[in-house]
Amino acid sequence: MAAWAERLAGVRGVLLDISGVLYDSGSGGGTAIAGSVEAVARLKRSPLKVRFCTNESQKSRRELVGLLQRLGFDISEEEVTAPAPATCQILKERGLRPHLLVHDGVRSEFDDINMSNPNCVVIADAGESFSYENMNRAFQVLMELENPVLISLGKGRYYKETSGLMLDVGGYMKALEYACGIEAEVVGKPSPEFFKSALQAIGVEAHQAIMIGDDIVGDVGGAQQCGMRALQVRTGKFSPMD
Amino acid sequence: MAAWAERLAGVRGVLLDISGVLYDSGSGGGTAIAGSVEAVARLKRSPLKVRFCTNESQKSRRELVGLLQRLGFDISEEEVTAPAPATCQILKERGLRPHLLVHDGVRSEFDDINMSNPNCVVIADAGESFSYENMNRAFQVLMELENPVLISLGKGRYYKETSGLMLDVGGYMKALEYACGIEAEVVGKPSPEFFKSALQAIGVEAHQAIMIGDDIVGDVGGAQQCGMRALQVRTGKFSPMD
Repeated sequence: MAAWAERLAGVRGVLLDISGVLYDSGSGGGTAIAGSVEAVARLKRSPLKVRFCTNESQKSRRELVGLLQRLGFDISEEEVTAPAPATCQILKERGLRPHLLVHDGVRSEFDDINMSNPNCVVIADAGESFSYENMNRAFQVLMELENPVLISLGKGRYYKETSGLMLDVGGYMKALEYACGIEAEVVGKPSPEFFKSALQAIGVEAHQAIMIGDDIVGDVGGAQQCGMRALQVRTGKFSPMD
Repeated sequence: MAAWAERLAGVRGVLLDISGVLYDSGSGGGTAIAGSVEAVARLKRSPLKVRFCTNESQKSRRELVGLLQRLGFDISEEEVTAPAPATCQILKERGLRPHLLVHDGVRSEFDDINMSNPNCVVIADAGESFSYENMNRAFQVLMELENPVLISLGKGRYYKETSGLMLDVGGYMKALEYACGIEAEVVGKPSPEFFKSALQAIGVEAHQAIMIGDDIVGDVGGAQQCGMRALQVRTGKFSPMD
């Protein structure tokens, strides 16, 4: 905690990444990273405002928070900024009806979204659901649209499970971009809008905030571009190359 | 044939794409494109040298040629330049032992290649074999290599089956490039080496040759960059946008 405490001097708010910082996902739900349950508890006892800012798109917020609570974390749904709810807001604002290429675990977040006659495609970290058949269907939906809109929940390259490194949504986003000749809209880190909405939720300005994450691009680079400080942990997908 | 005949004036050799020009692949093997069986027969009766130059990487040359012969085409294995045999030559020259992410139909082309303890990944149009599990395995192999080498058999965006447009290998190549932070080596059109090897096989110089294909990038653009003329057919994946 010594290093954290120093870097936190002068800041009013902390954005915490979840996967790779609080826990590593994996079979049976995953495991808490050593010291992180206590670190969150200490942050919450401090005068600092805390917000969890995740690109997790395999699970609904409810499922994710339930898992973290079982691992011992002090966290509630209302404290989490996640890409699926942010996407739903965008879909409603723009009258978009998505074809979903997502993990079954996150589908419930889209329960009140009109999905008839799709006019866009939403992809998230779909894991095993990234079959050729499902990718091809998403591709065909995009190719049939006059103005194809592809929304990607994050653009991570990979993440770490207890069993090893796993392909994240970013590659699949690139595959559809290339095949269709389009550019995706990314909802989630490192999009500035996403960081801003997390800061807004705790009423903290960017220059008063620090982002703590394991992703040198999504977490650290993204936060710095928004005027925040950032700290990369040496857990999760951290590599000495970073 | 009138338009072809005009454009062919002054040329000594013709490179013919296969998928989308001679036939559309699909269930049951596919169907010949109207007029193409007779067009190939006429070309072969002419003084022009003819070479088939394909990015087909789902089937072995033997299987592809067998299919085309059953559809009525005058074609033999020795007349076909295809990426799998070209890749095998590169693997041997450079002492590369591939992890294959390919369609079962083309696996036999790699029968005499050493695949123990892989030091590169070869991907081709794998169709249904582009599962998340298989993509993740290829990703993990690359991430474990000190100098990751990814060879892609073509980089097509999509192709046309009788049932509709289908994702080609290009998107999956981009996915692995992005996830691993590397650049693939492409064997096949539009790589200049590939066109040159096809021209060499018929002893024709680039300026004396014309490429006939349905892909504005892989066939037309690639051939023109090599100094050949090119003609885009209005079959296969041709779109009026081209």
